[in-house]
Amino acid sequence: MVSRLLLEYDGTAFAGWARQGGQRTVQAEVERALGVVLRRESVSLTVAGRTDAGVHAWGQVASYAGEPARAKSLNALLPYDVAALDCTVAEPGFDARRDATSRAYCYRLLTRPARSAHERHRALHWPHRLDRRLLDACAAAVVGTHDFTAFTPGETNHVRFSRDVLAAFWRRPSADALEFWIEADAFMRHMNRVLVGTMLHVASGKRTLDAFIALLAGRPRAQAGPTAPPHGLYLVGAGYGDERVLGTWEATQREFRPLRPAVASRPGSPGRGTA
Amino acid sequence: MVSRLLLEYDGTAFAGWARQGGQRTVQAEVERALGVVLRRESVSLTVAGRTDAGVHAWGQVASYAGEPARAKSLNALLPYDVAALDCTVAEPGFDARRDATSRAYCYRLLTRPARSAHERHRALHWPHRLDRRLLDACAAAVVGTHDFTAFTPGETNHVRFSRDVLAAFWRRPSADALEFWIEADAFMRHMNRVLVGTMLHVASGKRTLDAFIALLAGRPRAQAGPTAPPHGLYLVGAGYGDERVLGTWEATQREFRPLRPAVASRPGSPGRGTA
Repeated sequence: MVSRLLLEYDGTAFAGWARQGGQRTVQAEVERALGVVLRRESVSLTVAGRTDAGVHAWGQVASYAGEPARAKSLNALLPYDVAALDCTVAEPGFDARRDATSRAYCYRLLTRPARSAHERHRALHWPHRLDRRLLDACAAAVVGTHDFTAFTPGETNHVRFSRDVLAAFWRRPSADALEFWIEADAFMRHMNRVLVGTMLHVASGKRTLDAFIALLAGRPRAQAGPTAPPHGLYLVGAGYGDERVLGTWEATQREFRPLRPAVASRPGSPGRGTA
Repeated sequence: MVSRLLLEYDGTAFAGWARQGGQRTVQAEVERALGVVLRRESVSLTVAGRTDAGVHAWGQVASYAGEPARAKSLNALLPYDVAALDCTVAEPGFDARRDATSRAYCYRLLTRPARSAHERHRALHWPHRLDRRLLDACAAAVVGTHDFTAFTPGETNHVRFSRDVLAAFWRRPSADALEFWIEADAFMRHMNRVLVGTMLHVASGKRTLDAFIALLAGRPRAQAGPTAPPHGLYLVGAGYGDERVLGTWEATQREFRPLRPAVASRPGSPGRGTA
């Protein structure tokens, strides 16, 4: 029997998803809790999207050989910064990594002048000038099949560097927040963070849109921009078979919501949080 | 010269707003930072809404005698869990507490079965049955002028127990979140938290709507429900003169937004965070 587990975590205090001897990792915490609930010596998890230290997840999908555990029992054993949202029997042979046909991520920016007491490890504070039209043009260029060699560290061991981006767009959910949403068949190491870091360079005038577009044809890593920090990045979910996480841009516009009420960030009023 | 300061804070690690010897308080932190920036021995803050330990603020308003400080300079000196959003010259004689004609608060609930890795100190986890119509009926009953003696600790020293509630409503910003918003001329100690605790009793069948309504006529504290925990409560802002923070319910419906993207909580899909 194979089980499928849906997980949420705050990546702040983790050395990332994957087990590393002596480090605090999400995988180690969840495997330990599953072992206790299922009364087994060890449980081995496969995951849709391995995340780096500091990266968060809203909908990580994992699979393991064995019966499902009750989410409630797992949550009683898991630390505060990991939560099991669901655990069910999967189709025979299901593998959360191999069977995933897409992964979706969101990168969050706080764009107002003042930093936030609530968003410290949850959004990148970016109080600098940004040209929204250039961000939109970059995102539009990213959609489709490209060679993303420029957006992953040179030492990375990938067999192929081409990825199919199914959706990519920027949106401003409230006056002081800006988000980049992307769904692709798969991602390479740091790919989202280098994409965001390079798009921010374009939008602040440090490189041209044409230079950005040229990077999508397989340039070396050194030609792209900096790697944006991990704490703005969220694994939103994984798609299986024909299912997509983000769907079409039009469909998502109606549903997406920001992280704080807009009333607290409407400008020009004393009771609201905009500098 | 009087200055007006707009503040945001995460109340988790504070013993509340008000200075208390030896305790970590928001007031002490902000007064210390202001003293450094303004090169003064001491600065004394007056505040629109004193908050208890664990209660957060999106738009706290404070005033002090002296010139304005740059928000950026303050933020460089303030700890991570307090941020200055704005600091400007106020009208002569301005007093953030005395001149405030209203305060608005929001109480956030996470209503899905599983707890959240992201909302631990930010929303009350309430996985129990709730009758939304009863919550709405309670909120409607709260609007207007009532004697809120039942909703504040018996030992509290208030001169009058009557308060004018300008707006009060529940809303569900996403599938797994529920929020209570309220604006009144002023609040008594614990008033919002006892209101929420008692409304949750009504909505889960532990007391009747009629019993709740009867409490609004000045019953003793012992007849009301429990005090909801502080970590779900946010000071949204303060109104001055004719200005209101929440406006009308209809106006706010268009603007309010929840704390996470709805896509991460749409049910029935593997990549989304609903149990």
